Amino acid sequence: MNILIVGLGVIGGSYAMALKEAGYNEVYGIDSNLDTLRKAEDLNIIKKGFLAGECNKEAISKADLIILSIYPRLIKAFIEENKSYFKEGTIVTDATGIKGPFVKDICSSLPDGIDFIFGHPMAGREKRGIDYASKEVFKGANYLITVTEINKEENIIFLEDIIYKLGFKNIKKITPEYHDMMISFTSQLPHAIAVALINSDEEGRDTGRFIGDSYRDLTRIANINEDLWSELFFGNKDNLLEVIEHFLNEMSKIKSALIEENEDELKSLFIKSSKRREKL
Amino acid sequence: MNILIVGLGVIGGSYAMALKEAGYNEVYGIDSNLDTLRKAEDLNIIKKGFLAGECNKEAISKADLIILSIYPRLIKAFIEENKSYFKEGTIVTDATGIKGPFVKDICSSLPDGIDFIFGHPMAGREKRGIDYASKEVFKGANYLITVTEINKEENIIFLEDIIYKLGFKNIKKITPEYHDMMISFTSQLPHAIAVALINSDEEGRDTGRFIGDSYRDLTRIANINEDLWSELFFGNKDNLLEVIEHFLNEMSKIKSALIEENEDELKSLFIKSSKRREKL
Repeated sequence: MNILIVGLGVIGGSYAMALKEAGYNEVYGIDSNLDTLRKAEDLNIIKKGFLAGECNKEAISKADLIILSIYPRLIKAFIEENKSYFKEGTIVTDATGIKGPFVKDICSSLPDGIDFIFGHPMAGREKRGIDYASKEVFKGANYLITVTEINKEENIIFLEDIIYKLGFKNIKKITPEYHDMMISFTSQLPHAIAVALINSDEEGRDTGRFIGDSYRDLTRIANINEDLWSELFFGNKDNLLEVIEHFLNEMSKIKSALIEENEDELKSLFIKSSKRREKL
Repeated sequence: MNILIVGLGVIGGSYAMALKEAGYNEVYGIDSNLDTLRKAEDLNIIKKGFLAGECNKEAISKADLIILSIYPRLIKAFIEENKSYFKEGTIVTDATGIKGPFVKDICSSLPDGIDFIFGHPMAGREKRGIDYASKEVFKGANYLITVTEINKEENIIFLEDIIYKLGFKNIKKITPEYHDMMISFTSQLPHAIAVALINSDEEGRDTGRFIGDSYRDLTRIANINEDLWSELFFGNKDNLLEVIEHFLNEMSKIKSALIEENEDELKSLFIKSSKRREKL
């Protein structure tokens, strides 16, 4: 099977590494950075790299599976520019963190005979670039597939098989709308919180000497790719605003319990959160 | 040197383990739970265990260093009950997460000739009890000493030497008031946020299948000892309310940027948080 990865950043690079470990040898890559392609070739995780924007017909036309791990906004342009090169029956998938409007938009420009199965690996790194790629990142992770009307059942099964081989533990199939609602809570909200937490520190303090694992854990994802995450935030704006409200409501409960010195209320909030975390 | 650990929970147990690894063999323990004492003896991390409340004169009167790792509110009672047993020159330390009013309160009841050096290991586990103790938890961690007027310089040096031998990397010496201000931000606020985040989830959803490392990291400390942490929250109430306000202010900035679709503003918040996290 011929697999093409478009975009060999931290996610695309991790796909290449995990595919290699899973025994896939016919893996090719497209990237806009020549150094990245050289690195991927040197690491032997792709058979050959192609510079994006040059004629990618050769790479695309031979691919049975294309994994797009580029910025969400670049995906439609990639499809438009290369749609005449796709082989009949090619399966395309992505790694985009939001799905709703994006899926509709892409589906409208897909050529016939191409099955785009939208995917979301729930794994990543706060750093960008192939240097931070790792096959370990997918091990035990969740994977989400947002099924559309045009997806063929046999192609979904085919893709699921590969996903499990890459090390993912659970695959959940849902609608694009449900995906975005859940992800606003489990992914975008935590990122907003981490950013707000570290930005609320006073300037110039020696904070690093006063931290334990809790602050370290809660701010890890405050190191954030601003281009990618502003796309994800704006692309899921309504859901995100709603979960921010729910979160602020819970912060208010803690604040009120403190102000009113309501120990029972504070403890009951702690007991609730502990039970939920144990269950997770 | 004879060392006595009072309270062999997750922190006291970790002290016992780290002391053993550092080569201290004359380590004794007091705990209110007989099983915990047996476990500590079986693990060979204490030489002998004493049940709390029974006559602890023997254990206390021989100790050169006493490490109190019990609930903050129990410390004063322990001092009051046992003050006649302390050996002249004994150094006492603790592991309490708030210092301000607590330090003043304890100092007023200390017998002469006892040097209480208030300490705060910035390391812990979300679980309680000796079963979760580990000598690894202190490795590379921060340690805070809140110096008081009565502390003797040579005793501080003596304690610092032990702290480094246990694996801590940095010791910061500050006033109790500065400690509490910093800790409200680096410790209590992250715990409040983690609790609010997981409590803001809707009941009955299959959230676990939609999470990646970010949600996992941000909610780890939502599993929280409600008795200990309500003491810590109320004991540092004013500082905590202030940092909650700063945090909510930063959340508002993100919210406004979203509502107004102000991409530049959102990106600048992300760039600021990334820089701060890189620096940490």
